[in-house]
Amino acid sequence: MEPSAELCVVFLAVLLASVILPMYSVDETNFLTARSALIKSENCARLGSNVKLDTNEKMVSSFLLMEKQKVINAARLNRSIYMPAASFFLSKRWMQNTPVFKIISKMPKGAALHIHELALTSLDWLISNLTYRDNAYMCKAKHGYLKFAVFSTLSRNPDCAWKSVKQERTASGNAALFNERLKKNLSLLATDPLKTFETPSDAQRRLEIYQDQVENLIRRPTVLTDYLTQAIKEFQADNVLYMEVRARLTGMIDEHGEPVSPEGVLEMYENVGYEIVNKFRNFSGLRIIHTSPRYSTPAEVLREVQLAMKLRGDYSDILVGFDLDGFENPGQSLSYYLDALLFPTRSKQDLSLPYFFHASENLWFGTDADENIVDAVMLNVSRIGHAYSLPKYAKTMDIIKDKMIGIEVNPISNQVMGLVQDLRNHAIIPVLTVDTPILISSDYPAAWEALPLSHDLYVSFMALSSKNSGLRYLKEMITHSI
Amino acid sequence: MEPSAELCVVFLAVLLASVILPMYSVDETNFLTARSALIKSENCARLGSNVKLDTNEKMVSSFLLMEKQKVINAARLNRSIYMPAASFFLSKRWMQNTPVFKIISKMPKGAALHIHELALTSLDWLISNLTYRDNAYMCKAKHGYLKFAVFSTLSRNPDCAWKSVKQERTASGNAALFNERLKKNLSLLATDPLKTFETPSDAQRRLEIYQDQVENLIRRPTVLTDYLTQAIKEFQADNVLYMEVRARLTGMIDEHGEPVSPEGVLEMYENVGYEIVNKFRNFSGLRIIHTSPRYSTPAEVLREVQLAMKLRGDYSDILVGFDLDGFENPGQSLSYYLDALLFPTRSKQDLSLPYFFHASENLWFGTDADENIVDAVMLNVSRIGHAYSLPKYAKTMDIIKDKMIGIEVNPISNQVMGLVQDLRNHAIIPVLTVDTPILISSDYPAAWEALPLSHDLYVSFMALSSKNSGLRYLKEMITHSI
Repeated sequence: MEPSAELCVVFLAVLLASVILPMYSVDETNFLTARSALIKSENCARLGSNVKLDTNEKMVSSFLLMEKQKVINAARLNRSIYMPAASFFLSKRWMQNTPVFKIISKMPKGAALHIHELALTSLDWLISNLTYRDNAYMCKAKHGYLKFAVFSTLSRNPDCAWKSVKQERTASGNAALFNERLKKNLSLLATDPLKTFETPSDAQRRLEIYQDQVENLIRRPTVLTDYLTQAIKEFQADNVLYMEVRARLTGMIDEHGEPVSPEGVLEMYENVGYEIVNKFRNFSGLRIIHTSPRYSTPAEVLREVQLAMKLRGDYSDILVGFDLDGFENPGQSLSYYLDALLFPTRSKQDLSLPYFFHASENLWFGTDADENIVDAVMLNVSRIGHAYSLPKYAKTMDIIKDKMIGIEVNPISNQVMGLVQDLRNHAIIPVLTVDTPILISSDYPAAWEALPLSHDLYVSFMALSSKNSGLRYLKEMITHSI
Repeated sequence: MEPSAELCVVFLAVLLASVILPMYSVDETNFLTARSALIKSENCARLGSNVKLDTNEKMVSSFLLMEKQKVINAARLNRSIYMPAASFFLSKRWMQNTPVFKIISKMPKGAALHIHELALTSLDWLISNLTYRDNAYMCKAKHGYLKFAVFSTLSRNPDCAWKSVKQERTASGNAALFNERLKKNLSLLATDPLKTFETPSDAQRRLEIYQDQVENLIRRPTVLTDYLTQAIKEFQADNVLYMEVRARLTGMIDEHGEPVSPEGVLEMYENVGYEIVNKFRNFSGLRIIHTSPRYSTPAEVLREVQLAMKLRGDYSDILVGFDLDGFENPGQSLSYYLDALLFPTRSKQDLSLPYFFHASENLWFGTDADENIVDAVMLNVSRIGHAYSLPKYAKTMDIIKDKMIGIEVNPISNQVMGLVQDLRNHAIIPVLTVDTPILISSDYPAAWEALPLSHDLYVSFMALSSKNSGLRYLKEMITHSI
């Protein structure tokens, strides 16, 4: 059972009393009292320890704990694979049949705060809706996977042997089989991860290819509104109440090849958000974090920062801030763009620009890529994406704690991208014993066919937290996102 | 470059000054000064920060850092596999060709403090020497692997179809090929780990089989002296200066099936140790930690504790203390044996018994197995083996820090046993940023054909520490073992 929040203070007092005695007590009763106090004070320091539950919630928590411990005990006693920590490629179907997953999927989940524009809606909808449009095209790209796009005419795109998806589907003679093939070609989940993704870099390259596959289909003004509407519906169906989407507002072109202004893109996001919020009582909105690629020049990033500042002034209710996207290896570090990133505070304008940097989504130690965590904090970041190297940076951790900077953890993404195989080794676990706002998100959920938040919340509950962490853990994790 | 020990105080002062200024500084020079102070204060908190190097050592450190960073940069820029963190089954040959490994293998390495009696000498010697003895026998056991033994006559062992190794070798017609087959059958390294060991439990079972394969060959009085002499020679050749071997002193029988007294076994260890210390100037001794299996009854463990206390009184210069061996899942926890383990302090005799418990050599969180770390500390442990769950136990970590309890880390063992795939995810890494005596050992090095300490020290240097940690890290790591 979880200790109740009120008792935490008592446990600590007992612990303090017991350390005055020699630790190595000769009396078994004394030993057990002191041991119990130490264990309980450990529990009290963990995520969820300050949460109070009402009677109904306590019942749910007991049930969740019972089911969680059943799975843990079975794996321990039989020394068999612990499915909730195993590869998502193997565990997805399995977890969906568990009582814990079913409860989590029905729970209100607060906000999804670290998600990317190109992987918001299910691949099923993308195929059954977007690729059925008259002007949807496909071709086999140099990277060996299919690429999708919408065009008004084909003449402007000679780089790939584009064909109408509609015509190809008809020619195939079997629409269902054809659609299945398209989905398998897009989904990272459909491949065998142990064979396909030998190293983290293999998985990163595959995600980059996925982005290339769908970018010209999704980032099109004729499609975006429907895509976002569907995304919100799917997030809402997973009981997510609010979304913050990392999106590139620049560089979008319409299906005729004409540029679309960032203001135009932002207004599309805004309109969809307003419409849905008005329609559904259980959805409180969608906002945007403008992103710029890590392979840009410093001058380009400066322009994007300036644009974000301007947009933030004009659209402060929809644009929350700025980030750099793309992998930190071999992408550039935050310090490489320092001049551009310091611009907002140097400028005389009364415009602030909140930062939401990806920092240390990698395994390195002492490189620019993991030192991004230091630069993010120095640049007064509002929340940090991933922060996988954080436990290696004790002083920076202290600052993050003091400033209550939120950490956006994306467990399944980290696993699929090869950072960690068994999720019980996830680097952020020690941070869960410290009073810091950690929240769970899902990064590119559609790319590996995960639900908006349920799968990630499930694995975080089953593999990142203690066997004795119940509903209070989930509740605090969700509260941090709000 | 590593910051020198003297400068750490200065960096901290600069850092303190800089946090008085707003972190989000408008001036790039101020920013870089504050950033540099933060990074350096992180470096100063890490293992090795208080070590001073002389001029020659500084040169070696620069060279080590250059070579380390070359390998890191190559993997980062090419997004290729980082071999020093990859499976030992793949990396062993590769690392042996690196300049860093060559330097580490020649360095004096202090002590090997966490090694088990059944995997001390190389399999090559075991095959080329032990299996060539007249009374060495082999058979194919139920588990599918070969089992070895020495007997005076075969009549007492009807459980397996025993055959003379000598006769089998002659009958094979090709001694070299025959010996190679024996080695492959014994070695965990010779198998394909990704296929053979799907889960940590598969690897654990394989190590248990390895122990069964060699136990009746090695734990025999006619063999033990030669085996230990060879072990010390091999450890000395790897520049290890001192060894503490976890060994079972009870239950040993001679080749006629007659029991050997624990005192008799201990005297064999003692005699070999004395002889070698007198012979070689660069070896300072061998000591024993008596172990008892985790599947024993509490009454049996009590008897072993009482025996260890008695032996500790009579042989205090060779017997350093007591441990429980065997895997913590599904083995019993320390708290299961609490009554027995509290016996020494409860007894009126003036005999102390130092404890050297394995604690949390597993991935669980909130189970008896990972809470062993709490019990180990409560039982006033002298050093802890593995402590893989330690970063999940913040309060216990504080006690370990206060009491300066040593942590015995066995990185390659943890990897081979399936706890961690990429060593950059090793759970103990955050503990390296805290002032605690961590030391590197090798557990069962011969079972996976590792050198006594060099391979483990290499991977710890390349995969557990920062890109900027040089000789000072190695020096402090080695100092902790002395």
